[in-house]
Amino acid sequence: MSSTTSSPRLVTVAACQLGPVHIADSRQDVLKRMLSLLEQAAQQGAKLAVFPELAFTTFFPRYLLDGKHLDQYFDIEDPSEGGIEQSPNFKPLFDYASALGIDVYVGYAERSIQLDGTHIDYNSSVYYSANAKGIVGKYRKVHLPGTAEPRTEPGAVQQLEKRYFRPGDLGFPAFRAPGLVEGALKKSSGQFHPAQSAGKGDPIIGMLICNDRRWAEAWRVYGLQGMEILCCGYNTTAFPTTATGHQLDLTPKSAEEMVMLHHKLSCQGNSYMNACFSINVAKTGAEDGNPLVGGTIIVHPLGHIIKEAQTKEDEVVVATIDLADCHRPKNTVFAFEKHRRPEHYQPILDRIGVIEPDLL
Amino acid sequence: MSSTTSSPRLVTVAACQLGPVHIADSRQDVLKRMLSLLEQAAQQGAKLAVFPELAFTTFFPRYLLDGKHLDQYFDIEDPSEGGIEQSPNFKPLFDYASALGIDVYVGYAERSIQLDGTHIDYNSSVYYSANAKGIVGKYRKVHLPGTAEPRTEPGAVQQLEKRYFRPGDLGFPAFRAPGLVEGALKKSSGQFHPAQSAGKGDPIIGMLICNDRRWAEAWRVYGLQGMEILCCGYNTTAFPTTATGHQLDLTPKSAEEMVMLHHKLSCQGNSYMNACFSINVAKTGAEDGNPLVGGTIIVHPLGHIIKEAQTKEDEVVVATIDLADCHRPKNTVFAFEKHRRPEHYQPILDRIGVIEPDLL
Repeated sequence: MSSTTSSPRLVTVAACQLGPVHIADSRQDVLKRMLSLLEQAAQQGAKLAVFPELAFTTFFPRYLLDGKHLDQYFDIEDPSEGGIEQSPNFKPLFDYASALGIDVYVGYAERSIQLDGTHIDYNSSVYYSANAKGIVGKYRKVHLPGTAEPRTEPGAVQQLEKRYFRPGDLGFPAFRAPGLVEGALKKSSGQFHPAQSAGKGDPIIGMLICNDRRWAEAWRVYGLQGMEILCCGYNTTAFPTTATGHQLDLTPKSAEEMVMLHHKLSCQGNSYMNACFSINVAKTGAEDGNPLVGGTIIVHPLGHIIKEAQTKEDEVVVATIDLADCHRPKNTVFAFEKHRRPEHYQPILDRIGVIEPDLL
Repeated sequence: MSSTTSSPRLVTVAACQLGPVHIADSRQDVLKRMLSLLEQAAQQGAKLAVFPELAFTTFFPRYLLDGKHLDQYFDIEDPSEGGIEQSPNFKPLFDYASALGIDVYVGYAERSIQLDGTHIDYNSSVYYSANAKGIVGKYRKVHLPGTAEPRTEPGAVQQLEKRYFRPGDLGFPAFRAPGLVEGALKKSSGQFHPAQSAGKGDPIIGMLICNDRRWAEAWRVYGLQGMEILCCGYNTTAFPTTATGHQLDLTPKSAEEMVMLHHKLSCQGNSYMNACFSINVAKTGAEDGNPLVGGTIIVHPLGHIIKEAQTKEDEVVVATIDLADCHRPKNTVFAFEKHRRPEHYQPILDRIGVIEPDLL
């Protein structure tokens, strides 16, 4: 026992992996499965349940759609009618979470109604707090993969997120989850430095969605807010059709292994480099014949996998984590204030794409 | 065979791992070992040989030193006396590289003489081009680990880089290695878009040193310059004394496994996220009883390890790589110009350390 060791800040968390959601599956059926996962998570003592990206429906950006065929996948957020938590698609989930005393991260397709009656669509997630009895965090996916126009090459799998969604406009807003650990320092206590609770307040949460996890900038902006837990749901195609699989003439099996490597390098590498836990949750299995990878993992701030899903079906992956484990690396190897040199990072903001050195 | 597949741009590269360099080992002895590694690399067809950080001496920042005991580890760069390539410590290495037709990355302790006769010390690397018969790239380590004041806790291993070196002032300057692949597009050809050779010019190289590899910002600044090969030498303590090992009560074996995990997550994760090859080269083994990890690895832009050292001794690890493999991911998943959103990355420049959300 060292006197410099932080006090434990234990919390049990659950990754609620979903197996495939087919086009024909009704919202009611999917919601029923999610309520069952939530109940299993709570029964195992979890205080946070993380669901996948676009959890309530099939991963529809793989199809070229319009009109009502597209509209059916969206949840409408109309400020004049109250928040999304009042939507019939969400209310049963959040009501049950409140009754069970468990927080929820969940991804959905957001149709945001504007003041002039038009709408903007985002690939979004919200964080529902059982203690606050309401949504305390919202995120809109910044790094949309794929294309706006359908791919035309033979055998191409579509990935039309750039067609259906606008890039998120909220940045990467970390937030605190009230009461998620016991004994958290409160603003009213007067016992803290105003700028820094030094890892003793309510847990600091960040949210990403799917492809975002491959972008170090996203993790770092959260890391610079002291993030302790990153929640990230995803739908990731098991057989990539560009950049890797087809062009490298890989078998489906080796292509899927490569996709899993990329998933794990992203989640483990960025958790390590930002000294945070991450809960990475798949929608997986074959949706109407379209295979998605699994690989739901809970990752430690030292980069190793604490627990991993064993199936490609609905499955709850539970782990008890100690948020104090973040604070050793946050105060040493990754003590940002001691080691970072932003004066040399200017190109990260100054340019979007590549500018190569001149030819010789 | 796809018509969109880039033409191959093959180059054979060598990671020249060094076993321990003890305090008593003379510069001549070490240089002799390095010449032998260089020769082995050339015999296997390599056109680039990457040596470790502070390759010519023991890793002296583990000791508290001053005066001549410290000075002996530095190589003096005095602009009034010509470049470092004229130094007797470097000249035999570069002369042999020139004769063998092989480029060299090598790390050293740089004592930079200023106009007023004072000096500034850096942890540096240079890139010697056999075709240019001179140094074409220079880097000074930006992310210095450790402390400026010696650690006083019992059993502490010193890491005094912040005492002995100033953080690098050159940023992350990518450069081209002339003639490293055959058939590279030249400026004089007139066949290129002025801002972009689209991966057809002389190879674009980036350099990092040791702890830099854990910092995603460093890789990204190079990635934004179209880097195809990252060279990184390191001296990494096998038994961490802070943040991980001692505080977690790990055995030396499991502590070393954790250090290796962190090394590999950093090199593989950042190579993947920047779609570049990386050549990561250890000084390893026990230097006067102080263990350094090995793990010299050549990493593919898709994140997997192509080849890995098998020993903790002097060892040449050779691989033939195709730089065209960078350009598939650079044009799809990591086509920065299509996917990055710098408008949300502002905190990466605006803050050095963490600013937590307000307490609740």
